[in-house]
Amino acid sequence: MSEVYAARRTRLRERCQASGSASALISRPANVRYLAGAALPDSVLLIGKNEDLLVCVGPPGDRPADGRPDEALRTHILPGAGGDPAVAAADLAAGQGGDSLAVEEHHLTVARHRAMRSVVPRLSLTDLGGAVEQLRVVKDEEEISCLRIGAEIADQALGELLESILVGRTERHLALELERRLVDHGADGPAFPTAVATGPNSGRRAHRPTDRRVEEGDFLSVCLGATYRGYRCEIGRTFVIGTSPADWQIDLYDLVFAAQRAGREMLAPGAAYRDVDRAARQVLDSAGYAEGLPALTGHGVGLEIDEDPQLAPAAMGKLDACVPVTVEPGVHLPGRGGVRIDDTLVVRPEADGGPELLTITTKELLAL
Amino acid sequence: MSEVYAARRTRLRERCQASGSASALISRPANVRYLAGAALPDSVLLIGKNEDLLVCVGPPGDRPADGRPDEALRTHILPGAGGDPAVAAADLAAGQGGDSLAVEEHHLTVARHRAMRSVVPRLSLTDLGGAVEQLRVVKDEEEISCLRIGAEIADQALGELLESILVGRTERHLALELERRLVDHGADGPAFPTAVATGPNSGRRAHRPTDRRVEEGDFLSVCLGATYRGYRCEIGRTFVIGTSPADWQIDLYDLVFAAQRAGREMLAPGAAYRDVDRAARQVLDSAGYAEGLPALTGHGVGLEIDEDPQLAPAAMGKLDACVPVTVEPGVHLPGRGGVRIDDTLVVRPEADGGPELLTITTKELLAL
Repeated sequence: MSEVYAARRTRLRERCQASGSASALISRPANVRYLAGAALPDSVLLIGKNEDLLVCVGPPGDRPADGRPDEALRTHILPGAGGDPAVAAADLAAGQGGDSLAVEEHHLTVARHRAMRSVVPRLSLTDLGGAVEQLRVVKDEEEISCLRIGAEIADQALGELLESILVGRTERHLALELERRLVDHGADGPAFPTAVATGPNSGRRAHRPTDRRVEEGDFLSVCLGATYRGYRCEIGRTFVIGTSPADWQIDLYDLVFAAQRAGREMLAPGAAYRDVDRAARQVLDSAGYAEGLPALTGHGVGLEIDEDPQLAPAAMGKLDACVPVTVEPGVHLPGRGGVRIDDTLVVRPEADGGPELLTITTKELLAL
Repeated sequence: MSEVYAARRTRLRERCQASGSASALISRPANVRYLAGAALPDSVLLIGKNEDLLVCVGPPGDRPADGRPDEALRTHILPGAGGDPAVAAADLAAGQGGDSLAVEEHHLTVARHRAMRSVVPRLSLTDLGGAVEQLRVVKDEEEISCLRIGAEIADQALGELLESILVGRTERHLALELERRLVDHGADGPAFPTAVATGPNSGRRAHRPTDRRVEEGDFLSVCLGATYRGYRCEIGRTFVIGTSPADWQIDLYDLVFAAQRAGREMLAPGAAYRDVDRAARQVLDSAGYAEGLPALTGHGVGLEIDEDPQLAPAAMGKLDACVPVTVEPGVHLPGRGGVRIDDTLVVRPEADGGPELLTITTKELLAL
């Protein structure tokens, strides 16, 4: 694995040098993990002029690490507690003889930035922007394999829940049970707080489970995901409780399903982000649900659950092969409930069979 | 409740005006919640020259809120998706006729700060620093009551676990079971990721549960907490598995217990933070465990699990009455394991009976 991280750091170094910075300071934890194999609490990564260093406040073994640090990377441990590793890394960058350091201005706070400037006033601090996030968009097969396993785990957890009795149980308990099952099946943990929404809550994005109990006739919408070796996937499904869904439930389900399929079918290398969004959105728009639609119909996934790209009306850019994204349109009718259907897929060229669906739980409307 | 939030905002406004700023922008979520009753995703609070406004990207009912917004506070919803509420709030502050705006430089990123400056170049952005965090240190009785209930819930969850069979179960499963029990007993959720550490892992601070199973002869250390109405408490205990603890286990336990008691006994209005830390630390120091001790022996709790004050060697300041803190010394011997003992207490004057212990689970060394 060490070569993978070294290669990623080399690509970043090339980008920095092309824009005139000899060194870069990576502080956003998912970016540190991507380039160093692990993010320790409060650690930062220095992409130095001569040497890369993982800068930490304490010995790596001492504190809970997210991942395993690349062994080829030297670790610099701050002497004494309470120091800021970003400030220490700026000092180390200056010591390596650089005169400029690119930093993640979208992650560093104003206060940390000021502390760095005051320690190394001669170092010019430039903005690295989302350079590492951009490197992270296209995944290698190892990363996709982690997402695939995570999706299998989420499918299993959801499948088991559907076999149990649901009526009378609370949203909160169903969510906890799903999270326990994720871990049972080998997940590091949930990829994000599991959303279980019943009746009038159903169809709400990122709903926080309440003490409402599942009732006959409810829509039940569930959104969960597993983290596997740091990689996070997402699946969302909506069910009806009881034997015979109402007509409005069938109609709304069919509509959201059609929107979600339209989005999925647009996934191909070269497709504009906004066109994928529009394909799903216009199905809902033309049925009269233009109001209250979510800001996006999907997003990238990986070391974070919400990564680039955003599939949204104003998003700029085009999909590449090996980009995993969610497609997750939904409609929520205040007071009545609604439907969300959410898959994680990997963009693949037509010649390879088109988009690879990672979350394979059925999208038929199941009556439970 | 509305008057409580209004009074907090008035205190903050007075502090701002005293330091020359007519208005302030609060972006740190726990600070927004403290002053506005709720933190919505991406919301910020403007303490305006004429009017306070909660600035959000979408209607409050639409998105999962943490708490309930103060009804006396007007909400400003951004038109269209994708905007930054901090930038919008800066614009609103300028519209109210102020010429300076204090911001949380320890929370705002460099990129957001720059975006704000470019939208309102005539507004001078000053640093609010930790003014809201300082207001949050001393709790009112309503806040303490939430912490007390949270501590009761954590005690119950831990007590039930101790009655079950532990040998053969994994750290991960025990942690999940504790979190389920917290919710069963009425918690909003866990206050932080539950740490269950067995054998060689025991005694590590913030240990991430692994698939290691509990074995006879192990130390088992557990650290958990409940969130109740947004307030977070913490309890940590260490047990031995099996009927007869080894001598080194009894000795180490007694030592950490003595250190923890020394820290607890120092809690009083007027006691310096560093003196509380020193009281606990020197017990461990003088037994030869100076190396590898954690950077702090305790910290404040409240809307966040790790708040001011820090009980650490270099901390400046003195305790007040009604400040809830943890006292949590520990020793971890690499390869062997260790002991942590952690309570949440509220500082009270001697006349009121001294420190109020919220986490009442026994600290005798239990053999399970």
